[in-house]
Amino acid sequence: MAREIRVALIGGGGFMGKAHSMAYALAPSVVDLDVTIVKHTLVDANADIAAAAAERLGWQNSSSDWRAVIASDDIDVVDIVTPPQFHQEIAMAALAAGKPVFCEKPITNDAAEATRMAEAAAESGLANQVGFNYRHTPAISLFKKLVDDGDLGTPLNFRATYMQDGAYFIDDFGWRATKRTGGSGAVGDIGSHIIDLAEYLNGPIVRVAAVMNTNGGAAGSTWLPEDERVSQDLTDDAGAWVAQFANGSTGTFSASFQAYGRKNQIRLELDGTKGAVEFDWNRREELKIARADDRPDDSGFKTVLVSDAHRDVWYPVAGIGIGYVEGSAIQLARFVEAAANGGTSRPDFADAAHVQSVVTAIQESARTGAWVKVAVPAR
Amino acid sequence: MAREIRVALIGGGGFMGKAHSMAYALAPSVVDLDVTIVKHTLVDANADIAAAAAERLGWQNSSSDWRAVIASDDIDVVDIVTPPQFHQEIAMAALAAGKPVFCEKPITNDAAEATRMAEAAAESGLANQVGFNYRHTPAISLFKKLVDDGDLGTPLNFRATYMQDGAYFIDDFGWRATKRTGGSGAVGDIGSHIIDLAEYLNGPIVRVAAVMNTNGGAAGSTWLPEDERVSQDLTDDAGAWVAQFANGSTGTFSASFQAYGRKNQIRLELDGTKGAVEFDWNRREELKIARADDRPDDSGFKTVLVSDAHRDVWYPVAGIGIGYVEGSAIQLARFVEAAANGGTSRPDFADAAHVQSVVTAIQESARTGAWVKVAVPAR
Amino acid sequence: MAREIRVALIGGGGFMGKAHSMAYALAPSVVDLDVTIVKHTLVDANADIAAAAAERLGWQNSSSDWRAVIASDDIDVVDIVTPPQFHQEIAMAALAAGKPVFCEKPITNDAAEATRMAEAAAESGLANQVGFNYRHTPAISLFKKLVDDGDLGTPLNFRATYMQDGAYFIDDFGWRATKRTGGSGAVGDIGSHIIDLAEYLNGPIVRVAAVMNTNGGAAGSTWLPEDERVSQDLTDDAGAWVAQFANGSTGTFSASFQAYGRKNQIRLELDGTKGAVEFDWNRREELKIARADDRPDDSGFKTVLVSDAHRDVWYPVAGIGIGYVEGSAIQLARFVEAAANGGTSRPDFADAAHVQSVVTAIQESARTGAWVKVAVPAR
Amino acid sequence: MAREIRVALIGGGGFMGKAHSMAYALAPSVVDLDVTIVKHTLVDANADIAAAAAERLGWQNSSSDWRAVIASDDIDVVDIVTPPQFHQEIAMAALAAGKPVFCEKPITNDAAEATRMAEAAAESGLANQVGFNYRHTPAISLFKKLVDDGDLGTPLNFRATYMQDGAYFIDDFGWRATKRTGGSGAVGDIGSHIIDLAEYLNGPIVRVAAVMNTNGGAAGSTWLPEDERVSQDLTDDAGAWVAQFANGSTGTFSASFQAYGRKNQIRLELDGTKGAVEFDWNRREELKIARADDRPDDSGFKTVLVSDAHRDVWYPVAGIGIGYVEGSAIQLARFVEAAANGGTSRPDFADAAHVQSVVTAIQESARTGAWVKVAVPAR
Repeated sequence: MAREIRVALIGGGGFMGKAHSMAYALAPSVVDLDVTIVKHTLVDANADIAAAAAERLGWQNSSSDWRAVIASDDIDVVDIVTPPQFHQEIAMAALAAGKPVFCEKPITNDAAEATRMAEAAAESGLANQVGFNYRHTPAISLFKKLVDDGDLGTPLNFRATYMQDGAYFIDDFGWRATKRTGGSGAVGDIGSHIIDLAEYLNGPIVRVAAVMNTNGGAAGSTWLPEDERVSQDLTDDAGAWVAQFANGSTGTFSASFQAYGRKNQIRLELDGTKGAVEFDWNRREELKIARADDRPDDSGFKTVLVSDAHRDVWYPVAGIGIGYVEGSAIQLARFVEAAANGGTSRPDFADAAHVQSVVTAIQESARTGAWVKVAVPAR
Repeated sequence: MAREIRVALIGGGGFMGKAHSMAYALAPSVVDLDVTIVKHTLVDANADIAAAAAERLGWQNSSSDWRAVIASDDIDVVDIVTPPQFHQEIAMAALAAGKPVFCEKPITNDAAEATRMAEAAAESGLANQVGFNYRHTPAISLFKKLVDDGDLGTPLNFRATYMQDGAYFIDDFGWRATKRTGGSGAVGDIGSHIIDLAEYLNGPIVRVAAVMNTNGGAAGSTWLPEDERVSQDLTDDAGAWVAQFANGSTGTFSASFQAYGRKNQIRLELDGTKGAVEFDWNRREELKIARADDRPDDSGFKTVLVSDAHRDVWYPVAGIGIGYVEGSAIQLARFVEAAANGGTSRPDFADAAHVQSVVTAIQESARTGAWVKVAVPAR
Repeated sequence: MAREIRVALIGGGGFMGKAHSMAYALAPSVVDLDVTIVKHTLVDANADIAAAAAERLGWQNSSSDWRAVIASDDIDVVDIVTPPQFHQEIAMAALAAGKPVFCEKPITNDAAEATRMAEAAAESGLANQVGFNYRHTPAISLFKKLVDDGDLGTPLNFRATYMQDGAYFIDDFGWRATKRTGGSGAVGDIGSHIIDLAEYLNGPIVRVAAVMNTNGGAAGSTWLPEDERVSQDLTDDAGAWVAQFANGSTGTFSASFQAYGRKNQIRLELDGTKGAVEFDWNRREELKIARADDRPDDSGFKTVLVSDAHRDVWYPVAGIGIGYVEGSAIQLARFVEAAANGGTSRPDFADAAHVQSVVTAIQESARTGAWVKVAVPAR
Repeated sequence: MAREIRVALIGGGGFMGKAHSMAYALAPSVVDLDVTIVKHTLVDANADIAAAAAERLGWQNSSSDWRAVIASDDIDVVDIVTPPQFHQEIAMAALAAGKPVFCEKPITNDAAEATRMAEAAAESGLANQVGFNYRHTPAISLFKKLVDDGDLGTPLNFRATYMQDGAYFIDDFGWRATKRTGGSGAVGDIGSHIIDLAEYLNGPIVRVAAVMNTNGGAAGSTWLPEDERVSQDLTDDAGAWVAQFANGSTGTFSASFQAYGRKNQIRLELDGTKGAVEFDWNRREELKIARADDRPDDSGFKTVLVSDAHRDVWYPVAGIGIGYVEGSAIQLARFVEAAANGGTSRPDFADAAHVQSVVTAIQESARTGAWVKVAVPAR
């Protein structure tokens, strides 16, 4: 009988609570797990919301007291999906209680705080992981495998964009428009995803130069009363930056909340000395691969569909058709396995802290009009 | 508290058992359900397989005796995922026991038998549904909505292909190569899906002319011992047909097990007097829509991503990214709701029987080299 | 010094006159010609139109008397771009005068007449070619080469569509709506192109079953006075058919004048035992190629751009970017070379006569609701 | 009778000589010209090459003495397609002789020299134009029209890449690998095209931050003897930069000679407050357009094909299918018209000088690791 891992989901009454609940339900079918996931307790600050969400999403218990839940012997791991401003306190408490922690991104909007969290996580020796979920998309795993296997040669140039449609988030996500409501801005919120993906594929970024726009796009949201919109500490709507990686490769990046027609689109391109790869989240089963040693009259991008032939990058059960939840299930499965078996899982708090230091460097470069360096992480 | 619906899954030890188990787990998150689904009993002819699958896939009980399970008062609805040759007997028994039935497609490979099953289902007054799952893909629901709303005008021409890669199924699906092992051939197996989709969007087909290939492609499978392969009653590898619909529209269709590079690809196109639509399963979040009244210098296909803006065609929770399992969850949710509330759900046995009569007409046309008519269903 | 070939262009005052004039101008740059093309005389029934067109399009002389021009010793080859109803008389006269003939398609809308023209052309021993220009698109030449080299194995299934946007031709091409004004209908006009391409790639079609629509779409044109539109002998707006090839392969075809959003789109797909190919005229530099022997985890369609690496299928000068006129230049270069050197060029009148017999069989099948056979050509 | 404009083509023995010859031949068919272009004299330093090229490409005369040709009363305009290091001397001589000048890009690799040429051109009052040919692609003209008409609102973000396949140019273009052989590097050679396009669509760039790679990719060419390759002053293989426009918009750019699988690909994206546009040179008839005021459930990129409906952005004759040469013909037609009618045509020497100053700023930023400002042009 597989060992049971009892999960507490902190902040589970909202969007991410539902997404994680689906992912836990799907995980045993998507990954060959040697543990059994128990959806033990869903926590929300509002007890009624917690109770309703627990029933609807299939959790055994509900609570409005995260401290008590974390301390309980009935809980093996803690999964944090609250707004960002609460991440640090809850994550530190969980680590202190000896519980492995999964924390949604950003672990915090402050780079120094992120570093402290990473240090605490490292000292604890416990599994700790951050919700940069796109890494776990099967096509991205295949992309990473091509890089690691040397199929693309030495990376030379990288391009990444994360574009969201203004209309896409206007009502439900109006809190993103101002800092006081927890908004990170386009660079911190969605730019951080492509920084994580870039560092996953190329290794650490060491230098950035950036421009940013604050057009009040998100502030145009109906979420804020009209007379408050002007006085807000607005977050950025878009950022564009160029970066140098420690491996010598270079990259361009764009992140925007005001890219009409794109809904929620991440695109990645990597050119190496032996080949090139292209990925588009809106067509997330496809990886486009070109190889330098193809005959010139038979060269071009091959559209490889991630399928049951890719059992090394995921475990396709229903076999055909990868959505958002499959990648989410894979990331939580990796975390639960690491928690159960004492291993590590990535991206961890240290990875997230480095992403946050790149975000901070981008913001500084945009402010000062100068290049800004980023320290290479120790490991 | 929502009413509980206790499901028996018959034949759940294989691929489809896993797919349906995932779909039941996901259904409450994908659809606003007013019932609670209970994964009560998983049945497989082999008791050990049944027990292992039940534990792995989250079913409360297991059994190897489908008759007893169907008869039990603990079971509200029956879901049949056995090989096709067992569908009829189990479905008839379930209807006789007063249990709503979900049956994977094809309900049978014999058109007359299919008609008898449809009659029994209609007489029972019970919810009955067939696993033509692609109908429930959100982009297909949007497609149907455009047709029903008159956005495309009068349908004129329709094109559908269902292409599978030879390499795709060679080992796990070798049983598809011969009739004695339950194989339906390309036309009956995957062609039936595009017939269902065509009739869903255009109404019934009334006339077909067809050609078919039996190249022994699937028979080349390693699944059969080599000396048995030549003596088999081989199923067809591909079929192509032209059809006329009762509504005056015309269509071309191709289905093939030998279409390299395509993995598992369904493509649909409909041209109407007011617009045109294109769908590709491998890019299943996109619906391409052209409108006749666009200015000539601003006309073309718009790639609409099915997203949270389409709450009328699905209920997007995680919001972004539709895989195979979402459509599967929607179809089972529709069935369970109909079973719980006494309504009907589609496609039902009568729909499936008409699809089977079109399959039979195609096979006859390919054999005789003549056009073959198909009766229009009564309703 | 290269030999001069003096061309007479009959019917050069319209659209096709301009297209051929551009093509002759471009030919020496697109193909390594060993002859010099002289744009000698442009003929139009209206002498003023002929004179103006000759000056504008760079012809040395103009005339309104095609008989005299064909008879003249100053003319080496005849190029016919008149409306279809005049093709036969002019082509026969040119052959009788011992002049190689290029004739736009359809050489005639009557299959028996086409056969007589093909016989006359064959007896003459002169170069004769028909304007099925799409054959000469470099990507199609590459497609043909893959078939001929056996890269795709045995052809199994073929699919072709030729879709035109209703809005696309409504004013300039209203004459297409009725037979008395020379309209061939969708099947004869654009369907003939995909029949030619199908036979080029697969060899002759031997059997067809078809449905056709005559919705009066083209008749809605403003080209005809309103009170005449109802009384016309309308041509078909669309046709769909399934075909069997002499080589055992099967195919589906659709041609339509009422396909909104597509402008002028030809798509071709061929599945063979060793690979598959896809072509889309609207992206005419791309050929998508899948190969059966790719590793399952590295399989898919490779998008090969026809470029300077393909000097065996064309002679890329400006190197980058193939439009309509390049293919047109290649086809006329092939004709002029054959005329100069005594060789043959394809598609010739015999090819066009077979295409016309397939068109006639499609029309008969649509009328009778029965399969119709087509004779295999002698060679 | 239209006025004749007699052209001298200086440096016409190579690739660009052929391209311009084709373009002049096609121009009267692609644009409604009110002048007649006379291909008067082709000049090459080697008299034999000049004579052979003139005959092959349809020029009336040939010469090896560019000074005499420019001075001749038989010449109305001068078209310079020599290697870049000769541009300045020839262009200045032509202006001094009172002849309108078309000059291929880069007009020079030195920004100060470019400014002097621009000043001389402005003082002359003569038509002067530079071969940034991509501007004249019909889809780009449509793109510009959407910007100018305000259809996209205020520009917010821009992205451009120009990617060439290493294999693409290795033999014929080996001279690009070193400065002493006239190579400009990826940034100067192809990056300049996307800078021109960016400034065409967004107005002037005012600030850049850049990284560059010099991997010796082009130096791996077989064009140089092996022992000379190491000692060369190598040009850059790739550059990536971020830029700020005077209009407040921001942009990211990448140019590379080492992008496998792409042949010769320019991609542009612009996000504005009212819509977004995407262009891909490899699919150059398509412009993808999204509009912010589309209903959320009917939003996305519409693929508009540039066709006969766009007579305001080009003059489609053969109607269907735009290659490289059509854009080239349009640019030369615009120049000849300006020369004949005393008007101006763009991009002119001043535009090219600004592009060169951006190139220089990029190179400086990559060297110093600091942001570099670029002066806004006076007009």
